[in-house]
This record gives sequence, C-alpha cells and structure tokens, in this order.
Amino acid sequence: MAGVKELFEDGSSPAGRIVRAIAAIGAATATQLVKSTGLARSTVSTLLTELKDHGVVLDVDTKSNGFGRPSQLLSLNPVAGRCAGVLLGLGEIRIAICDLAHTVLSDVWFAMSEDYSPNDAARCVRASLEEQCAKLGIHLSDLLGVGLAISAPVTYEGEILNGSILPTWCGTNIAEVFSAQFDCPIHVENESHCGALAEMTWGAAVGEPDFVLFKFDLGIGGAIVLDGTVQRGSHGYAAEFGHMSLNPHGPLCRCGNRGCLETFAGGHQLLRYAEQSFGEPVTIEQFVERARKGEPGYTRLVEDAADMAGWGMGLAFTILNPPLFIIAGKLAEVGESFTTGLEKSFARHSVAPPAHSPEKRKPRFVVGTFRGNDDTVMGAVALVLRQHGRIANAASAVV
Amino acid sequence: MAGVKELFEDGSSPAGRIVRAIAAIGAATATQLVKSTGLARSTVSTLLTELKDHGVVLDVDTKSNGFGRPSQLLSLNPVAGRCAGVLLGLGEIRIAICDLAHTVLSDVWFAMSEDYSPNDAARCVRASLEEQCAKLGIHLSDLLGVGLAISAPVTYEGEILNGSILPTWCGTNIAEVFSAQFDCPIHVENESHCGALAEMTWGAAVGEPDFVLFKFDLGIGGAIVLDGTVQRGSHGYAAEFGHMSLNPHGPLCRCGNRGCLETFAGGHQLLRYAEQSFGEPVTIEQFVERARKGEPGYTRLVEDAADMAGWGMGLAFTILNPPLFIIAGKLAEVGESFTTGLEKSFARHSVAPPAHSPEKRKPRFVVGTFRGNDDTVMGAVALVLRQHGRIANAASAVV
Repeated sequence: MAGVKELFEDGSSPAGRIVRAIAAIGAATATQLVKSTGLARSTVSTLLTELKDHGVVLDVDTKSNGFGRPSQLLSLNPVAGRCAGVLLGLGEIRIAICDLAHTVLSDVWFAMSEDYSPNDAARCVRASLEEQCAKLGIHLSDLLGVGLAISAPVTYEGEILNGSILPTWCGTNIAEVFSAQFDCPIHVENESHCGALAEMTWGAAVGEPDFVLFKFDLGIGGAIVLDGTVQRGSHGYAAEFGHMSLNPHGPLCRCGNRGCLETFAGGHQLLRYAEQSFGEPVTIEQFVERARKGEPGYTRLVEDAADMAGWGMGLAFTILNPPLFIIAGKLAEVGESFTTGLEKSFARHSVAPPAHSPEKRKPRFVVGTFRGNDDTVMGAVALVLRQHGRIANAASAVV
Repeated sequence: MAGVKELFEDGSSPAGRIVRAIAAIGAATATQLVKSTGLARSTVSTLLTELKDHGVVLDVDTKSNGFGRPSQLLSLNPVAGRCAGVLLGLGEIRIAICDLAHTVLSDVWFAMSEDYSPNDAARCVRASLEEQCAKLGIHLSDLLGVGLAISAPVTYEGEILNGSILPTWCGTNIAEVFSAQFDCPIHVENESHCGALAEMTWGAAVGEPDFVLFKFDLGIGGAIVLDGTVQRGSHGYAAEFGHMSLNPHGPLCRCGNRGCLETFAGGHQLLRYAEQSFGEPVTIEQFVERARKGEPGYTRLVEDAADMAGWGMGLAFTILNPPLFIIAGKLAEVGESFTTGLEKSFARHSVAPPAHSPEKRKPRFVVGTFRGNDDTVMGAVALVLRQHGRIANAASAVV
C-alpha cells in the first residue's frame, strides 16, 4: 500500500478517497466516511483495517475532536503529512502549519512593507516555511501543499481579480509566482472563502453541508457553501456580499458602484463616521469595545449597520434559501446590539415563510467561532486539507 | 437485460445511469454520456452495444436534435416509455406527453373553475391522461412518471408553501393528493424551476451547466442552475427573485414585505399602472404588443421595469457570479427596449469586473426559447425526464 502522501494525492482510488475524507474531517467515524466517500460500508471497513495496518490511519479517542458519537474515531497518522496555510495581508504575513489530524504545529507572523510584491511574498514565505519545517524536524518537500488566502476574488487559475488590500497585485497570477518557489501543490482562495473552510473544519459549521457566511469586518465578504463545497462562481466572484448595491443613489463605493452594503456597514466606513463625529481616529478594536460597552454614538452606528446588514442577508436568503447563516468578523464581536438588530432587519427583508408553518422554515443564525484573522490563516490550511482551490503546478500532477 | 422502464427506475446500475443520462439529454453522443455518467469510456461503449441489442437504445441521425457533433447520436427507443407533464394554472390545466426521445406526442388544455381544489385537479388530470394514453395506444400505467408544475414554492416533500395563484392550496401536500390517483412516480416543482428545466432540455440552456434564469411575467420568478442541477434551497424557496426587497419603504407586496422587485417590475403591477393611466383594463398580451410598437406610456413603464429588473439581476450576479443569464417570460417578448435597459442597469448594479480584463468576466444574456406557458408544461415533462423533484409515492420505490 502507498504512503499517506501518495494516497492523499490520489483522489480516485477508494483508499485515496478515504484518506482525503479523513483529512477533511480531522477525526472521523466509519459511518461518516461511508457517507462522505459514497463507498460501500464493507469497502470502507476493509480499507480502514488495511490503512491501520500500514500506519496511515490511527484509532483516536473522542476527546481529540468534539465531533460525532463517542464511539471509535479515526484520524490520519499526524506524522505522515503536514499542510501549510498562508495569510497574505496588508503589511503582514501569517503562516500556520498543521498535521493531518488538524493539530496546529506552528503559527508565525511577520511584518512586511505595505507595498510588498507577490515575488517578495513568495520568497519570504519560502524562507519562513524552511525555518518552521526545520524546527519541526521535517523538510519543505514533506509539505502536502501550501494554501494561500488573498484579500480579493481569485480565479480558478490563480489570477487576482482586484486588489483592495494589495492594489498592485491585481492581475497577478499568484499560482505562477508561488510555483517558482515551491515543489508542492499550491491552493489559492479569497479570504472570506477561506473563513468558511475554517468554520467547516474547526468551527461553527462543522457537519453543516449548506450555509451562507457573512463576514462583517473592515470590509464585508462572505461565502456560499452548498453540499459541503464553497461556491466560487464562474470567475471566483461568488458571495461578494459587500458589493450588493442597496441604494443606486447611495455613497460611492471603492468598487465603482453606489450604495453597496460595504458603504453602509463596512468597518472602514464605520471608523470614518466615528472619526467625523468624535474628532479622533479610532481602530476597529476600539470601535468594537466602545460599541460593546454601549457608548451612545457607537451603539447607533452599530444599530444602523445591523439594519443594512440584515437587509443584505435577507436578499441572500431570498435568492439562496440556506438553512443556516454564520455571522463572522469583528462586528460580530460587538454582540447582541449587532446580531439582534440584524435578525430583526432580516425578517423584514427576506421572503416570508408561509403562514401555516412559519417557524420551521426560518434559517438559524450562528456567530462564527474564530477571532481576529485566525479564520483566514486556518482556512488557508483547510484549502490543502480539503483539496479546495488547487491550481496548476508544473512540479506536481493536478487533480 | 431489464427493459427501459426498469432501467430508468434504477439510478444506481451503470446501465441505469446511461439510460437516465440519455433521457435527460434526448439524443446524446457516447462522449456526452461518458461525461455525464462519470463511467469509463469502455464501460459506456460495451453497455451501449448491449442496450442497442435489446432495443432500448437506437442510433438516430443528427437531424433529430441540434445538439453535439454531427457524428453518431443515440436516443432511447421512443416507444419504450412516456412521461407526462402537467401545468396546474389559474382556472386551467395543460397536459403534455413526451416520449423518451423528447418528442411531444400529445398536448391538451382544459378550463377549470377558478377555485378548483387539489383533489379536483388530480381527478381531472387522471381522466384526461387516460383519454390521451388511449389515443396513443398505451395504458396509464405505462407512464414513467407525472411531473407537476405549481405556481408556488414547493418543499422536497411536496408541500405547497404559498399559493399566490391558487391561494387555497397553501399547506396542501400535492404529492399525497396525486399519489391517490396514480401508480407511477410523481414529480413536483414550482413553475419557474420547471421553466429552467425546459430551457435546459429543449431551449436556450441546452449544454449549459451553470446559469441563472429570471422570468418576468405577471409575477417574477426564476431558477439557479449549478452543475446541471436546479437549486431548491433548504425548503424549496431558492431563486424567489420577485421578492428581493429593493426598497424598504417601497410599495407593499403581496408577500408581506415592502419594495419587492415584483412591486416595480411584475406584470400585474405594470398592468395596474397602465389601467390607472389610460383608464381601461389591459391584458399582458396587449401590454407587450403596445410596448413593442413603442407607444409612449407603455415604453416608459417597460424602461422603468427594466431599470429595476437590471438592479435585481445585478444583485443576483454579485451573489452568484453566473456565466449566463436566461431572460424569460412575457416581458422578454417586448424586445430590446426591455433587454437593453436591463443590461445597462445590470452593469451599474453588479460587482464590477476588474479593470485589467473587464470583457471576459461579463456574463452572457440570452432570451429564453419558450413562449406563453410552453416552458412550464414542458418543464413539468422534464421533471420526469431528468428525475428532478420526485416525491414519495406509496406505489413505487423512491430514489
């Protein structure tokens, strides 16, 4: 039998499908593997015995993951493969390394100049990963893949479609740039899509095949997950919730249109309003803290933002009819004054459930698990674990 | 080898998968079947030989369908199975019967009282189908399924969620009502979703796995198609485009919210505006004809509707990023004064393509193929051909 790396690369054989399914879930029961692979129970059972005999799969106890019944949980052998996730942010890069059992082995952050180039990024990420791998006693070539989270829509080929955070990167093929520095597969997605993958893998959406995530932070983004897959649309634009145009005569948006949701409820805009009113600059952290404490002006800004955010989520519901909304990002940390207002506005702007059974048709609202940019960097790791957003790489076969 | 009916019922065996794939496409090449079944080319080739030997599959020439390369097209033996589609409309029922080669064998229409009940409908549909089957020399029990198109969202279990056209039907389980009259499988979907299936099977969306359909008629509905599947959402509500709330202070909508797209661009509303202005009732056909001719008031109403319709489609694009929009319904028959205005408004209200490659990221706009309610009744037939929207039926196995 092949090793973990070969099995993980091989998405078509039954054993490869089981290895990929365990990698996505972390610690899985045999029943979950039957469901997620579509293989017969007897096939799964036989192959699991074989995979255990070869040290690819281990029995783990239920404590390692809050998932499934407290019967037997199976994990991939953690020493058998590592995945790296990279957040390419404004003036900073954060890198995490995880094993196939979903344990974080390394998590580093370093500053970059604000106008660093994609080539700078690739070189610095390579240098940092070499150092981190050395500390873990492995080699760079042992990585099963590197996932990149970008603050912009990204095409299936790795082309960055706009660059609100890193404006000069627009039009760059990030796949080509990173392939020059790495032999392993490269995966790329935009940061909100990564956030959804993180929630699916470790957070509020574990076991949820269908949901819509709204991330209310300095900008507004999101993700649509159908049947366990983050939807990307025809060019990687899907779920650009921040740019839903709510008022054709509203404020001009950085995207070139008017009255986008972001111009009403985006964190950047809220900070500008606060500065105008109170005469001093405020950080998003300060803003959230003051709104949490109920300081009047901040409370009102959050209530007004929640009103517009609920309208946007209502539109998304009328179009997609999801069973679950995950609310993520800094504004979600404000607490009930944001989420309660949002749900109230949602009810006024979403297609109404039928009078004969209103309650059971309502979607659930859940606040995301992650704080800060943890969702983004962990979602970048999940790109590799879930084999999402993989792009062409000369050095390895593309699935 | 089993007969067509047994193979069509059997969605799991390789031969059954091939039969279902041919039924969905109509006339298919072997290459198309390899792609749509996921089976190996050699398996498809061997099974096709066997299916031909048993008279299940026939070679047909390219003229029978404008689809694929002019090489060998394969169809199911048309005498081997028939599917019925039923449109349950306001004061009328229309029924079509098709064979498995997608040829319409029978198409009848009859009036009902405006307040006919679901039980009335089931009895009348049964009586009419018995008569039609007798004329075709077959028995009712030879039908592979009956598809029902309903003017309301319908759950996966067949529950009608609201009843704008047939208000008293709200809460009815249409599956149970029809199962009492029929031994064959029953399929149910809302009429706009049926319209998308008709366009996929015979119309403007043949060969298009991903698109969004907007239907601008007396009401406004639509469908989201991803990877060849009409999306239903968690409760059958998906793509309720007519009820996207565009103005929280706009006119009250029949759904209970304000400022829904339907209150600005729905045909019922346009007819009311025309009557208010010109002092006499006008039918949707008259309205479309006058707008086509460029009569001033009608032209302005259409332009204003197109402006709001383009906004709604822009929101759907920002959320879904589809490669193709199909524009269907009576308003699409007005022609360029509707579609040009709509595309112009769309560009102002959809997330903008990146400056470095604007043209290739734009979606295509195509007017639907069907006229009148042909899309609905043919979509009801396509429910059976494509095995979509099938509901529990005591008399037959449920897939």
